[in-house]
Amino acid sequence: MGDYREMWAGLGLDLQAHDALLNALGKGYQDTFLSQKNRPQAMGYFDFVMSEVHGLRIKELLDARADGRKVIGTFCVFVPEELILAADGVSIGLCAGAEFGFGEAEKLLPRNTCSLIKSFFGFKMSRVCPFLEVSDMVVGETTCDGKKKAYETFAQIQSNLYVMEIPQMKNAPDRELLKSEYLRFKAEIEKLTGVTVDAKRLRKGIRTVNEKRRALHRLAALRSTDPAPISGLDALLINQVAFYDDPVRFTASVNKVCDELETRVKKGEGVAPRGTPRILVSGCPMAVPNWKLPAIIESSGGVIVGEESCVGERGNRNLVDESGSTQKALMDAIVDRYFKIDCAIFTPNPDRTEHIESMAKQYKADGVIHYSLQFCQPYTMESFAVEQKLKEHGIPCYRIETDYSQEDIGQIKTRVATFLEMLGQ
Amino acid sequence: MGDYREMWAGLGLDLQAHDALLNALGKGYQDTFLSQKNRPQAMGYFDFVMSEVHGLRIKELLDARADGRKVIGTFCVFVPEELILAADGVSIGLCAGAEFGFGEAEKLLPRNTCSLIKSFFGFKMSRVCPFLEVSDMVVGETTCDGKKKAYETFAQIQSNLYVMEIPQMKNAPDRELLKSEYLRFKAEIEKLTGVTVDAKRLRKGIRTVNEKRRALHRLAALRSTDPAPISGLDALLINQVAFYDDPVRFTASVNKVCDELETRVKKGEGVAPRGTPRILVSGCPMAVPNWKLPAIIESSGGVIVGEESCVGERGNRNLVDESGSTQKALMDAIVDRYFKIDCAIFTPNPDRTEHIESMAKQYKADGVIHYSLQFCQPYTMESFAVEQKLKEHGIPCYRIETDYSQEDIGQIKTRVATFLEMLGQ
Repeated sequence: MGDYREMWAGLGLDLQAHDALLNALGKGYQDTFLSQKNRPQAMGYFDFVMSEVHGLRIKELLDARADGRKVIGTFCVFVPEELILAADGVSIGLCAGAEFGFGEAEKLLPRNTCSLIKSFFGFKMSRVCPFLEVSDMVVGETTCDGKKKAYETFAQIQSNLYVMEIPQMKNAPDRELLKSEYLRFKAEIEKLTGVTVDAKRLRKGIRTVNEKRRALHRLAALRSTDPAPISGLDALLINQVAFYDDPVRFTASVNKVCDELETRVKKGEGVAPRGTPRILVSGCPMAVPNWKLPAIIESSGGVIVGEESCVGERGNRNLVDESGSTQKALMDAIVDRYFKIDCAIFTPNPDRTEHIESMAKQYKADGVIHYSLQFCQPYTMESFAVEQKLKEHGIPCYRIETDYSQEDIGQIKTRVATFLEMLGQ
Repeated sequence: MGDYREMWAGLGLDLQAHDALLNALGKGYQDTFLSQKNRPQAMGYFDFVMSEVHGLRIKELLDARADGRKVIGTFCVFVPEELILAADGVSIGLCAGAEFGFGEAEKLLPRNTCSLIKSFFGFKMSRVCPFLEVSDMVVGETTCDGKKKAYETFAQIQSNLYVMEIPQMKNAPDRELLKSEYLRFKAEIEKLTGVTVDAKRLRKGIRTVNEKRRALHRLAALRSTDPAPISGLDALLINQVAFYDDPVRFTASVNKVCDELETRVKKGEGVAPRGTPRILVSGCPMAVPNWKLPAIIESSGGVIVGEESCVGERGNRNLVDESGSTQKALMDAIVDRYFKIDCAIFTPNPDRTEHIESMAKQYKADGVIHYSLQFCQPYTMESFAVEQKLKEHGIPCYRIETDYSQEDIGQIKTRVATFLEMLGQ
């Protein structure tokens, strides 16, 4: 990484704390990713992105701002990137995946708060997140109780916070609510950027995001073969980078990986021997650098073939219909696409279990590991019903509840190994 | 209590488990309520109600059903009793306040679930709740994540469950959502009862509930004097019984207590000496027999002068405007009244802190004890901001997080005693 200390200082970061974070991140990346065998060469791009995630990428964002563009930071896949791009904005994911600054965070939050929330508070309060500092607007949303209420406190330390309401059911009045919230957001983005989002701009934004999603769908489909042509860790990384990177460059880079994977598939090559237990991971999102559970699974003799997650197929499936000719029709198409997201915050949420089942089938998974963050009530509660339904349909499922700490790694390793062994029998 | 064993068996209760529950409840009531000194004589009615809560009251409900009326069980103050009464239904509160059947409940729910939710699961699964069994319809609602997701599982063991959506913000589209949900509920109630809710019936329902609320407001206002004319425990009990009892009989009984309290106030008599530290309790609802924290406060030398709670002033303040002449106008008046409820599920929720402050002033509280149930994210998260705001305005506030267990009573006693001592200085 180049010398960005001046840039970081300019953003108000605590350089010493930030060094500590980057060192830990670098070491974690080395141990988890670079130690893998038989990686696709095209992953080199993503290694580079990760090595420059607080460096070159931040510089790019500052350059974009200098060119008059606005940077919008988001915490949730319900915030439509299409609208941000249509207004010539840059969309950046802000969820954090490291146990950093939790002591600070717990001054403002109950201890019984999930790690993801504590993490973005910790990053902010420890002044180690350049993405937060470079954002012209930060968008929260009323998904879970934890985030919904935490944003009230977060607004005190992040003054440009905007909160979007997400409905809790999937009936007609809920679609109306979501639509009115997207229209309110569009107006806010237009005010911020000074750009009027017309049909042409909207279509362009939709196309860019659809292309990104198509590349991710292509990647997902390639993982259905045995042997798996790419590790779950690398596929997760790509899905994580999707939230940070320039979308056009990202799409091209994913397609490059896919080209290479297609060759592998034709040759019958893979990252793990044919017959390796194939795992579908389902549940809470995993933000960078939360690689704990996938690293355990893949170092214990399993290979992950899909992620039913916001950072994965729940977040990227379904395209927005590009065919509408008016701004109104295109906005409706955006609402239609996002209203399908089967997040556990909805009740009832039968689509999600069906999706897990269809993913297990499509990617030929031998079993599902359901991952929930401790104190995440929507996913933890839903996991009981998910497990029950999957078992009824003959799909083995194992529920794991954990947080960002390293303390339970030994225990999780034992449990994952037992599950993999059971699948192998 | 008479011999209701045949009735309970007919409702499918587990008589042995139910005996155990009633014995514990009876002993708890004896120790907590009947041991108090200088109680108003008119509390005798409430003692009787409590002694017959699973007996005579259940018989009344069965008699009402035999007369063709429907019993609707609810878990939340967002379910408009006015609508139920307008359709000649009987409204019954179902929240449970005892640690009973938690082992069973934890087979279906995460351990990190609040006691209130575990309790109604435990009551159902242990077959000890006659109210659930006598209900023709049980109404859940999407308030917190915990309840919202738990109802999906609960529906598997309580087949007549209906779930109502509650919005999360207080903007125009949210009022629209609430209104459409109330209209959907009205249609459901009409279908269940066979009664068409016209303006006349609606007005009658509104008046009955308004009268009940007026009596509770009268009771609340009387507690502003020093010495306090009634204990916080007895006032809480009245607020709890409000959810179970026949509304007209209840209103008359509350007014009888108030008549007696007015005489006390004139004479300067009270339940605790003048100058006793006066506490406002704020936070999560306390369902029967959850008297743990108030019992600790009042046996430690404090007196509770108000409850900012669903089982208290958050639940009963504001009347529905009775003046509308059409069904439509009256439905709008109902929506207006309920949309004001300042539950912590809303974001932002500044009204609640303002209400706590105004209650502290009105009831001359020396300090506020904020009570949250462990794993209740909305109230626990909001308590940080509440404490901060109250302190800024010179009102001492102490946050307590607990559950239904008895294990932390010693620790809470110490903490409450320290807070009371600090207030006395």
